[in-house]
Amino acid sequence: MELIDEHRAFGGAQQRYKVQSKSLAGESIFSVFLPPNWSADTPVLYWLSGLTCTDENFVQKAGAQRVAAELGIALVAPDTSPRGDEVANDDSYDLGQGAGFYLNATQQPWQRHYQMETFIVNELPEYVRELGLHGKASISGHSMGGHGALVLGLRHPERYCSVSAFSPIANPSDCGWGEKAFGTYLGNDKSVWYQHDASKLLSEHKAPWPILVDVGLADQFLTEQLKVERLEQAAAKSGSELELNRHEGYDHSYFFVSSFIENHLRFHAGYLKA
Amino acid sequence: MELIDEHRAFGGAQQRYKVQSKSLAGESIFSVFLPPNWSADTPVLYWLSGLTCTDENFVQKAGAQRVAAELGIALVAPDTSPRGDEVANDDSYDLGQGAGFYLNATQQPWQRHYQMETFIVNELPEYVRELGLHGKASISGHSMGGHGALVLGLRHPERYCSVSAFSPIANPSDCGWGEKAFGTYLGNDKSVWYQHDASKLLSEHKAPWPILVDVGLADQFLTEQLKVERLEQAAAKSGSELELNRHEGYDHSYFFVSSFIENHLRFHAGYLKA
Repeated sequence: MELIDEHRAFGGAQQRYKVQSKSLAGESIFSVFLPPNWSADTPVLYWLSGLTCTDENFVQKAGAQRVAAELGIALVAPDTSPRGDEVANDDSYDLGQGAGFYLNATQQPWQRHYQMETFIVNELPEYVRELGLHGKASISGHSMGGHGALVLGLRHPERYCSVSAFSPIANPSDCGWGEKAFGTYLGNDKSVWYQHDASKLLSEHKAPWPILVDVGLADQFLTEQLKVERLEQAAAKSGSELELNRHEGYDHSYFFVSSFIENHLRFHAGYLKA
Repeated sequence: MELIDEHRAFGGAQQRYKVQSKSLAGESIFSVFLPPNWSADTPVLYWLSGLTCTDENFVQKAGAQRVAAELGIALVAPDTSPRGDEVANDDSYDLGQGAGFYLNATQQPWQRHYQMETFIVNELPEYVRELGLHGKASISGHSMGGHGALVLGLRHPERYCSVSAFSPIANPSDCGWGEKAFGTYLGNDKSVWYQHDASKLLSEHKAPWPILVDVGLADQFLTEQLKVERLEQAAAKSGSELELNRHEGYDHSYFFVSSFIENHLRFHAGYLKA
């Protein structure tokens, strides 16, 4: 684990690490914000970013460090896919590098490197412990990363104390982005897709924690790609606790995320520090 | 004046405008944040960015909108130079496009487009009034933009209610960045340079308002390029009020700016809303 960049921010440290990832079969970079006076007990919020992002978008644009410093929460932001010349890729922005969809690919030529679920759930927490952070964990994310946070939370509920999402791809089995990615990475069996679809998972299993979701009503992807109403229906069906806030005039950008990130951090702090 | 981008943020509007600038003899883009419930009286903080930046760096990375929304201050962030294929340029990052140094060039081939002082002090405020903003103004900036804020403030004291800077190039007549830019844009007469040098100006004239400056002690440019101690000496000489805060561990990045931008906005609010 190599520290490749560090800046003091809000009394804490904004760092980037490079690792040789086993699950991704190659180099991966992730960002960590360590709040002031952090200790082994300091809890961790994992943040999963959206299509085309790296570990840096959230770090530079969300303005999360101020509140994380105040609350004493570490922030861990991984990349959105494996990277490198030897890693399978696609010319479109919504497939391949920058578009890992937080799942383990079963199809070729993707299977070797695209093991993002294993990386996020198992390998990344090992690095976080190596840094000295042994506290509780929660997970959040934006768009494709909102899908990732919900699905990884629901598939591994024991790993996380709370789950939230901004503008998530809530029903990827039934939207253009999800159909393209799932068909490519997972093949044609829709019963496999449903195991990576937040609305499908939540309709079948009661979530063990409340879920917080925020979405903008001027989001250009709301109707065709996000379909957050499916998540609402699923939560009602399983009796899960979902707070879904719709915000007039807000779009899909990090200006939206930054406007409401403080609410999400305080929501997670309530479970991480309970 | 063409609105080319708009996002809701913190209950206000983050906008970008494209104009055909008279003083820059070409197209220029600037960003504006309008706080919620703004009116004709809403005051304006001009923000000048540093080398290599456009209007977008501050907007995306400083996290200023949250506090500006709370305080009811509009933020106006221009580009750092004229732009375009027909605009004189240089291969280095510290000269030409992205490096206008907020002065009016007198030398060729720079003179035609590099009229940033006129643009910032006279032309940009016209666009701001065209938007309906007729309130008081203050000015701040980072690095080359910290130089710009201090120098434009001291050269046009009646325009601004308060002046602040992060990590300013405080004595450009006597550092590598400044000598290169001033020699190129202004020629070899050092008496002309001194009219664009914050430490020289402040040593000769008592500033009519208090100045706030923050700098990081881990700033890689502190000793060779910024020389903020010269500003301290100048303020002492002229009896000007300067608050210069040195911060251990902080560097030259926007992580530093974002950590202390709230203090600067509250400082300016005290004068803009007095």
